[in-house]
Amino acid sequence: MRDKRSLRWISEQYFEQNGSHYQILLTPPTPLEFSRLVHISRPVLIKGLQVVESLTRLWTNDYLVERMGERPISVAVTPNGRADTVTSHDGTDYFVEPSVEQMTMSELLVSLSTGSSQNGNVYRSRPASQEGDSLSEFNSLKRDIPEEISWCSEALGQPPDAVNLWIGDSRSVTSIHNDPYENVYCVIRGKKIFTLFPPSEGWLLEEREYPHAAYTRPSPSANLKISPSGQTVRWSSMPEPDVHPPRGTHPIQIEVEAGDTLYLPAGWWHHVRQSGPTVIALNWWYDMEMSGMSWVMLSFLRGMHLEENGDAKDDSL
Amino acid sequence: MRDKRSLRWISEQYFEQNGSHYQILLTPPTPLEFSRLVHISRPVLIKGLQVVESLTRLWTNDYLVERMGERPISVAVTPNGRADTVTSHDGTDYFVEPSVEQMTMSELLVSLSTGSSQNGNVYRSRPASQEGDSLSEFNSLKRDIPEEISWCSEALGQPPDAVNLWIGDSRSVTSIHNDPYENVYCVIRGKKIFTLFPPSEGWLLEEREYPHAAYTRPSPSANLKISPSGQTVRWSSMPEPDVHPPRGTHPIQIEVEAGDTLYLPAGWWHHVRQSGPTVIALNWWYDMEMSGMSWVMLSFLRGMHLEENGDAKDDSL
Ligand SMILES: O=C(O)CCC(=O)C(=O)O
Ligand SMILES: O=C(O)CCC(=O)C(=O)O
Repeated sequence: MRDKRSLRWISEQYFEQNGSHYQILLTPPTPLEFSRLVHISRPVLIKGLQVVESLTRLWTNDYLVERMGERPISVAVTPNGRADTVTSHDGTDYFVEPSVEQMTMSELLVSLSTGSSQNGNVYRSRPASQEGDSLSEFNSLKRDIPEEISWCSEALGQPPDAVNLWIGDSRSVTSIHNDPYENVYCVIRGKKIFTLFPPSEGWLLEEREYPHAAYTRPSPSANLKISPSGQTVRWSSMPEPDVHPPRGTHPIQIEVEAGDTLYLPAGWWHHVRQSGPTVIALNWWYDMEMSGMSWVMLSFLRGMHLEENGDAKDDSL
Repeated sequence: MRDKRSLRWISEQYFEQNGSHYQILLTPPTPLEFSRLVHISRPVLIKGLQVVESLTRLWTNDYLVERMGERPISVAVTPNGRADTVTSHDGTDYFVEPSVEQMTMSELLVSLSTGSSQNGNVYRSRPASQEGDSLSEFNSLKRDIPEEISWCSEALGQPPDAVNLWIGDSRSVTSIHNDPYENVYCVIRGKKIFTLFPPSEGWLLEEREYPHAAYTRPSPSANLKISPSGQTVRWSSMPEPDVHPPRGTHPIQIEVEAGDTLYLPAGWWHHVRQSGPTVIALNWWYDMEMSGMSWVMLSFLRGMHLEENGDAKDDSL
């Protein structure tokens, strides 16, 4: 594919120019400093965020259980901890979404700390958006969670699009993907291991169209089964890019410890593992700037220009 | 050339996303606002810069002549007002630089206002950098010229790389090119007509390698002649993109009047005409951010990836 020569040239030049370097800040940036970092669009590890350090101390299991009480929360459930991944079923590869099941905070934390529930599943909390149902689920924790990260909102000139709460354990793995959001990601408990690829290397992660399915549980005591939906999803075909990075890629691994914050720029590919009996994180998603070149570039670097002519599956270079 | 399909896709998507819109600010931006504008990297017309408005009143011909006195200044001289353009000579197209000649401010202003000098030439002042010889030339105007534009220096976290002074008349034309600088361009007298193309359309301006030459004057009373240097220069092969924009381009024309300032983002292609008997402008060049994707993108959009395989001259699509 001669068309991939462009992508190869860009990914090589980008690496030559930037290497695998990431910056570490010992204190949060000012809005202006953060605005410059957003322009550079490289990951940054940020220490010393007051709110993260306080929550690290405040959010014990007892506190979370007491605050949430018997209110049911929506938890993403899969048989193997791998939410949103490509899984083989009846001889076909499907993109499979987790089942969403209701449980109390106490039930979730027990299933995580004992490493098993009655079904042997692993749980990962669903993002709690600022509006709608999910908000009310986490309402009783809301007073602990800042509505925005001030230096980020000021830099971008807008409030966040969503705040997400993540609770899982070391069996939960988030498969490689990217988002059109500037992401401020704070670890409250445990450790998250991010494996990052710049947007310029996205084409080497070889996205494909997969048939879409979801885990469903036919009855409360039944095992999870895979139910195709008839839709399709574009997703990377690389199952373990953290362990087996595709040739030509230059992954950056960043361990984000409790109290630390990662700035993950829009469009950066991320695969996330975690370590600890219970791992808790909060993140703020801000819409990326759509004016100018950024969005066009991200689409190009995913190979969207190849799509239109049906070349996406031809990866002979 | 299948490789140009990438460039075509990007230029079309970029136009679809951004149109030919440019923002007009009635007051200068704050550093943070300007930082966001640099990230978007679209041209912005800025009104209300105090220093520009003051110089508009202060810099009369009498004032300039009195300040500069008999000190000789270096003026770029060509037979036709077109500096740095491709010109045919002995059956070959050359990229021709102007001759640099010494004259007093009074001589320059007279030659501009009468529209002719003894040789029938048109003059354009050479940029006066902050250091070296050119500085001393304009030393006596230096106290009028701010060393930096505060909101720009603060936004970019650095002082300007150079300050340039431009004095010409309506016969001076600057041919289409781009620079790796964030450019804050202020018109003090007369009017400048910028024809701009986004970096994404640079490949349609079809750069070529040209043999390099300069105008020289064998003796003080002789006519200018073209003297090849043996070097080469990469330059657009489009002589009048303002009048005959290449197919597929979407030029943005911005008239910058006395008192107005144009933010011209790094990498944007510009062709500049001027109108008025004497046109005076000042601009500040700031190094562009080299980390991240910007530099790689600008190189790609110029078709540098085609270069390496000797395809640059093949423009059959
Ligand atoms: O924490 C995780 O496992 C995934 C985080 C993520 O994908 C995101 O914040 O976009
Ligand atoms: O004023 C002109 O004629 C040209 C200005 C220019 O090319 C620049 O500022 O980069």
